Amino acid sequence: MILMGHGAGGRLSSDLISNHFLPRFQSATLSQLADSAVIGDLALTTDSYVVTPRQFPGGDIGRLSIAGTVNDLTMVGARVLGITAAFIIEEGFALQELDAIVASMAETAKEAGVEIVAGDTKVVPRGACDGLFITTSGLGRLDAHFRPMPHRAVVGDAVLCTGTLGDHGMAVMVKREGLGFEGELTSDVAPLCGLLDLLRDLGDDVHVLRDPTRGGAVQSLLEVANASAVRISLEEAAIPVRRAVRTACELLGIDPLYVANEGKALVCVPEGSADEVLRRLRSHPYGEEAVKIGHVVPGRPGCELRSEFGGLRSLRMATGEILPRIC
Amino acid sequence: MILMGHGAGGRLSSDLISNHFLPRFQSATLSQLADSAVIGDLALTTDSYVVTPRQFPGGDIGRLSIAGTVNDLTMVGARVLGITAAFIIEEGFALQELDAIVASMAETAKEAGVEIVAGDTKVVPRGACDGLFITTSGLGRLDAHFRPMPHRAVVGDAVLCTGTLGDHGMAVMVKREGLGFEGELTSDVAPLCGLLDLLRDLGDDVHVLRDPTRGGAVQSLLEVANASAVRISLEEAAIPVRRAVRTACELLGIDPLYVANEGKALVCVPEGSADEVLRRLRSHPYGEEAVKIGHVVPGRPGCELRSEFGGLRSLRMATGEILPRIC
Repeated sequence: MILMGHGAGGRLSSDLISNHFLPRFQSATLSQLADSAVIGDLALTTDSYVVTPRQFPGGDIGRLSIAGTVNDLTMVGARVLGITAAFIIEEGFALQELDAIVASMAETAKEAGVEIVAGDTKVVPRGACDGLFITTSGLGRLDAHFRPMPHRAVVGDAVLCTGTLGDHGMAVMVKREGLGFEGELTSDVAPLCGLLDLLRDLGDDVHVLRDPTRGGAVQSLLEVANASAVRISLEEAAIPVRRAVRTACELLGIDPLYVANEGKALVCVPEGSADEVLRRLRSHPYGEEAVKIGHVVPGRPGCELRSEFGGLRSLRMATGEILPRIC
Repeated sequence: MILMGHGAGGRLSSDLISNHFLPRFQSATLSQLADSAVIGDLALTTDSYVVTPRQFPGGDIGRLSIAGTVNDLTMVGARVLGITAAFIIEEGFALQELDAIVASMAETAKEAGVEIVAGDTKVVPRGACDGLFITTSGLGRLDAHFRPMPHRAVVGDAVLCTGTLGDHGMAVMVKREGLGFEGELTSDVAPLCGLLDLLRDLGDDVHVLRDPTRGGAVQSLLEVANASAVRISLEEAAIPVRRAVRTACELLGIDPLYVANEGKALVCVPEGSADEVLRRLRSHPYGEEAVKIGHVVPGRPGCELRSEFGGLRSLRMATGEILPRIC
């Protein structure tokens, strides 16, 4: 039976994909499990958005649906050629809210310099869906010399993060649960194509780009560690988390490293390039707080966290549901 | 407020697209409203599938989701490069049914010779969606000399149909409503890339290909008539409709020309090429019953039906909902 955890991006999601989808679809491209499928010099990606509430501090389902797909293409180094949007709408949905969401999609697309080239609308009877779901897909083209992929991390790489972690998931969660201090929490949802274009001419030095969405930084880094057969060691003190996010996480008993981000990237580059990459990232509004958070080290594939006091903790994939419907 | 008719492919759907999506998205490509967006020599398309019941005579939501996207690419002359599939699943959905649907998708993809290269899975709580929705997107590449488009019909073209009309919509409808004679009704859902590849070397002679899905043949032909600024005249006696479909349509008071098909194409070619095109279509299992159903004639843009007794009826767009959730 399908559980909420099957959609949460952790262990159950991985099992569903590995045991139920991959064996039947038998696609070498799909099996790479990158943020986008790479077909020759083209990249293709898709994501459904079912976030609740549809409006949250810092964004809405419309902005999320465009930024998410732009970012999936950006993470494999692609330049966006076009985006499609498919709407499933519940009968009785307010046209005014639809207009606001469509306007938000258009504005985000404009910011990212991308075009929404095709669409579809299905309406289902009252009760058959929870308001509105959006599925966006994206097509991009790759440069020959800029091919970041999850399997390209190597020992000696620095692991960088373009800013604070946990903002999106906690902003949605706190808003939905009405926890009161939502004013201090804002989603980071943003298209990252402009920020990461600043790294394009570094070419093959950019080994890995990942956007840590569902499952958070840990899920993304574990996927990199497994794909590259390397160990990733993070410095707890270096990981940037806003105070309000940390407080909310502590109250809810959630580790911010497992919380979704929608406007951040993790970057693996050779240690020698790290300072230059950080300088470039910090020159952009979406990368002002970019920092080095760890290293790729020898050892058994996996991910570990070194505490401020020298303790070492192994980071494992979350089993099931941590934060439902945050994207 | 969103009504069921906004998703039915008729007048309300057109209004929603024209008044709420196009002005905000401002995309010249989107505004062409072809079955797929054409970007240089690439084609991109998306569709959500919310059909109920998920299993029906002749197919299921899985086969539908792959065939529909393959067909949208095929109608603009593209060869499929890859398909993506995004699942929105209700908590508690049976894994066994999911497996059967995924197997059906894989089988249809294999038949069509296409690969499912990327995917996404979201799970929503019980009651937040009706079981399972699938959104597929497709990427294809176009030949320079084979560019069927809705605006390319010209006076003097023959209008051909690859087989009987109304099968899919009535098979789903009769199954869902439990009308008893469902054994005689079978959906035509099928990927048409193999059939229409037989026309590829006719090149520019193939002016228009459309698959008459939601809104049926009338909706598709009206879109062609408007895009090409031509009048399409159909011969009622020539239009192939299975007896069981005709009977079901009469009982329900529905015109089969407005009923969705999922394995048929409408083809506009110069009258002089019509016999050769029909010969080729009839050589393929999915085109055995291909026939000429009308002509492109001078006159005010629109669509008309000439009855067996010489009467002439103007065919208008359906206003709202005829058959809900048939795809």
